[in-house]
Amino acid sequence: MNELKEITKRDIDFAKWYTDVVKKAELVDYSNVKGSMIICPYGYAIWEEMQKVLDQKFKETGHENVQMPMFIPESLLNIEKEHVSGFAPEVAWVTHGGEEKLDERICVRPTSEVLFCDYYKKIIKSYRDLPKLYNQWCTIVRWEKTTRPFLRSREILWQEGHTMHATKEEALEETLKMLHIYEDFQKNYLAIPVIVGKKTDKEKFAGAEASYSLEAMMYDGVALQNGTSHYFGDGFAKSFGITYLNKENKLVTPYQTSWGVTTRMIGALIMVHGDDQGLVLPPKIAPYKVCLIPINNTEEVTKSTHEIEEMLKQAGITYQTDDKDKTPGYKFALAEVKGYPVRIEIGPRDLKENKVTLVRRDTLEKISISKNDIITTLTKLFEDIQTNLYNRALKRRDSMIYEAHNYEEFTSIATTKPGFIKANWCGDISCENKIKDDFSMKSRCLIENESITGPCVCCNKPAKYRLYFGRQY
Amino acid sequence: MNELKEITKRDIDFAKWYTDVVKKAELVDYSNVKGSMIICPYGYAIWEEMQKVLDQKFKETGHENVQMPMFIPESLLNIEKEHVSGFAPEVAWVTHGGEEKLDERICVRPTSEVLFCDYYKKIIKSYRDLPKLYNQWCTIVRWEKTTRPFLRSREILWQEGHTMHATKEEALEETLKMLHIYEDFQKNYLAIPVIVGKKTDKEKFAGAEASYSLEAMMYDGVALQNGTSHYFGDGFAKSFGITYLNKENKLVTPYQTSWGVTTRMIGALIMVHGDDQGLVLPPKIAPYKVCLIPINNTEEVTKSTHEIEEMLKQAGITYQTDDKDKTPGYKFALAEVKGYPVRIEIGPRDLKENKVTLVRRDTLEKISISKNDIITTLTKLFEDIQTNLYNRALKRRDSMIYEAHNYEEFTSIATTKPGFIKANWCGDISCENKIKDDFSMKSRCLIENESITGPCVCCNKPAKYRLYFGRQY
Repeated sequence: MNELKEITKRDIDFAKWYTDVVKKAELVDYSNVKGSMIICPYGYAIWEEMQKVLDQKFKETGHENVQMPMFIPESLLNIEKEHVSGFAPEVAWVTHGGEEKLDERICVRPTSEVLFCDYYKKIIKSYRDLPKLYNQWCTIVRWEKTTRPFLRSREILWQEGHTMHATKEEALEETLKMLHIYEDFQKNYLAIPVIVGKKTDKEKFAGAEASYSLEAMMYDGVALQNGTSHYFGDGFAKSFGITYLNKENKLVTPYQTSWGVTTRMIGALIMVHGDDQGLVLPPKIAPYKVCLIPINNTEEVTKSTHEIEEMLKQAGITYQTDDKDKTPGYKFALAEVKGYPVRIEIGPRDLKENKVTLVRRDTLEKISISKNDIITTLTKLFEDIQTNLYNRALKRRDSMIYEAHNYEEFTSIATTKPGFIKANWCGDISCENKIKDDFSMKSRCLIENESITGPCVCCNKPAKYRLYFGRQY
Repeated sequence: MNELKEITKRDIDFAKWYTDVVKKAELVDYSNVKGSMIICPYGYAIWEEMQKVLDQKFKETGHENVQMPMFIPESLLNIEKEHVSGFAPEVAWVTHGGEEKLDERICVRPTSEVLFCDYYKKIIKSYRDLPKLYNQWCTIVRWEKTTRPFLRSREILWQEGHTMHATKEEALEETLKMLHIYEDFQKNYLAIPVIVGKKTDKEKFAGAEASYSLEAMMYDGVALQNGTSHYFGDGFAKSFGITYLNKENKLVTPYQTSWGVTTRMIGALIMVHGDDQGLVLPPKIAPYKVCLIPINNTEEVTKSTHEIEEMLKQAGITYQTDDKDKTPGYKFALAEVKGYPVRIEIGPRDLKENKVTLVRRDTLEKISISKNDIITTLTKLFEDIQTNLYNRALKRRDSMIYEAHNYEEFTSIATTKPGFIKANWCGDISCENKIKDDFSMKSRCLIENESITGPCVCCNKPAKYRLYFGRQY
């Protein structure tokens, strides 16, 4: 019990609170392999839920899963110049196979654009071969110096979609389609509000023509980029010499996209919804929606527990039963740390009246109900909790987005208030750089097609965009 | 059409037939990354079906998925002496992260025993922590010199279960339980008969106390080891210093298992069931049970195709429709190469009588039926095909297993007939080595608890075991 209670208070030390929660909720453990984490069963089960929902959405929109090599020969990585300069400093290099030195060193993929391009060059010959809508679920490696569970790690579990299209329009449509699939998923499953917009040239992906991102705000006001979708134009395709015969029998170049989300989304779940008791999971992404806690192991309680398990099974509601040899108090605390949307306490006193106690995790409200009403109550509760979590997160986030009309205002907000700042921007990288240098705030994303009036918050020249700024994970 | 017809005949050049099929059935493509293959959508969909079935069986038997690091520091790999000597010659070594040389080189996991042990050492303290039943789906790397799609590759997609138990008995029970889950899966889903037995000491896994394997026979009589389950005793646990307090409050060592299957199983599917027309997939593992082929794109045919698609959807029967701009002949051939259990040809002549033509892939028999009978006919057909494929494979395999009672007989069979040889064996490695040297036949596995009479087939000393020998992939 004590070890569970030892979660640092969220408002006292947010970073420590975070690592306490990932550890005590049994999401992640540290390994002796530097920079790598172990994803524990409960953490992995959340990832599996995410995969299930997203994989279905990808397939419904015509995407197919493949598996590309995990290694990239140095010469292949070098083909697209902007791309290689972005990634080469942070790749892991394999130089030996067994005892033998390799003729050419190879890196573990930090992302797979070049592998897909190399393959697409081979298989795309005619307009009939387009579009190609491939995705893969895999692990990538980026040699980060400092790491934090789920947020920054040398190994990252993710999915990466890589698509090729006959026209610019179609590729742009795909870029935005996938962005909106992510947005829908994060809003409606993770209950996380996101700002969806375009990255500035400075912040876009190495080699992309346009990058779009989903920017979530954590409890502490810091941004987490929670997914990206990139439009490549024909840049990579040209570098790789990918061409096809169009309907007019002309040799032309196709247009490309890539898009991905990672286990970072678990970090976002923690930092958006978690509280001083631990993790709080939205019902639609919780691997187990209910935690059953028998208060003792008397025949009556055990029998009722089995009955309720049966009811849940019939109703297709996932659950875990904590029948370990621990005190009820410990089990309640553990269920709270692990963030099950609802726990059901099954105790002898309640059972005398044919009742059980439900505790919803978002509010910790206790609800005493008849055993017969469990399923209907849960169904209602799950909806309530899902909505409440989203609204709560939205309200908090919106209360921490500030408008700055001039540099004085910007300075005052940036130096006193956590959160995002929305401001006019001229589009010049020097203004973006100045804000970054002065306040360690990078641009998050800009909203396209917003009508702008007024001057740039930094240089006072006429503004072109509305841009969000924020510190980031 | 021509390019599809160019499959080498199975009986003329089996190796070439195999590579023709993996390529033309669109399972795999070659990549420019030496030793690595690209698993194409259709091949990956088969792997996803395998994962779905097995993952459920693992979870039903109490196993949980985790994700361990993909890297192993050299010092960690070195802890178990037998293990490291088995794997060190074939690992890929990472020596640099970005520009920096690593203090200690790390290898990409060739298997994860040491990673799990390192973790179990940390989390297993009490009998209450046991058993630990962890599994992971991941990619491993073994630096093979010669590679073949699905059979031998530098990167392997697999699952690896790693479990820890309080007692020897429980660990042995787990080893056999998982072996039998594999056996059941291969018989009842892949329709592949397997010989399930114990590896000799010579052939067992590096560091294991006992290794069990599933040995399938390919069409050409060559063995494919199609899964393994290992009992480690307390060997690794002792090397790693894993101990726990038992119920009597004594510090003792737990017992360990590991077990795994890989995408090799796809190779087995091809080489057991495939024929001169290409792949033949058992309905229970086919990602799409039916291929719909509209003969033309008239309104009538298109309308009926949509109707049938709807019927299949309603019945939960997976399908793909080939409405590409190709001739019916090409589509029939492609459906055969790709091994859909049944294809449905939807043509105007049949439709006049409200009929369609079903072609079962295993026999290529054509069946003309009323459109209304599609679902009932398919349901029956799938069962028939599944059973027929298993029986056909079993019959062929059994016809290629020979008994040898002495070395003369062994020599005669080994030099003239493809297949397995079953023989008595004294248990001495020198006899096993002699047979390997003389005929390139390794021992496959032995059947435990079989009663033995007679002499060793090699040295004539009293035999202890009945052992299968065979050449292998």
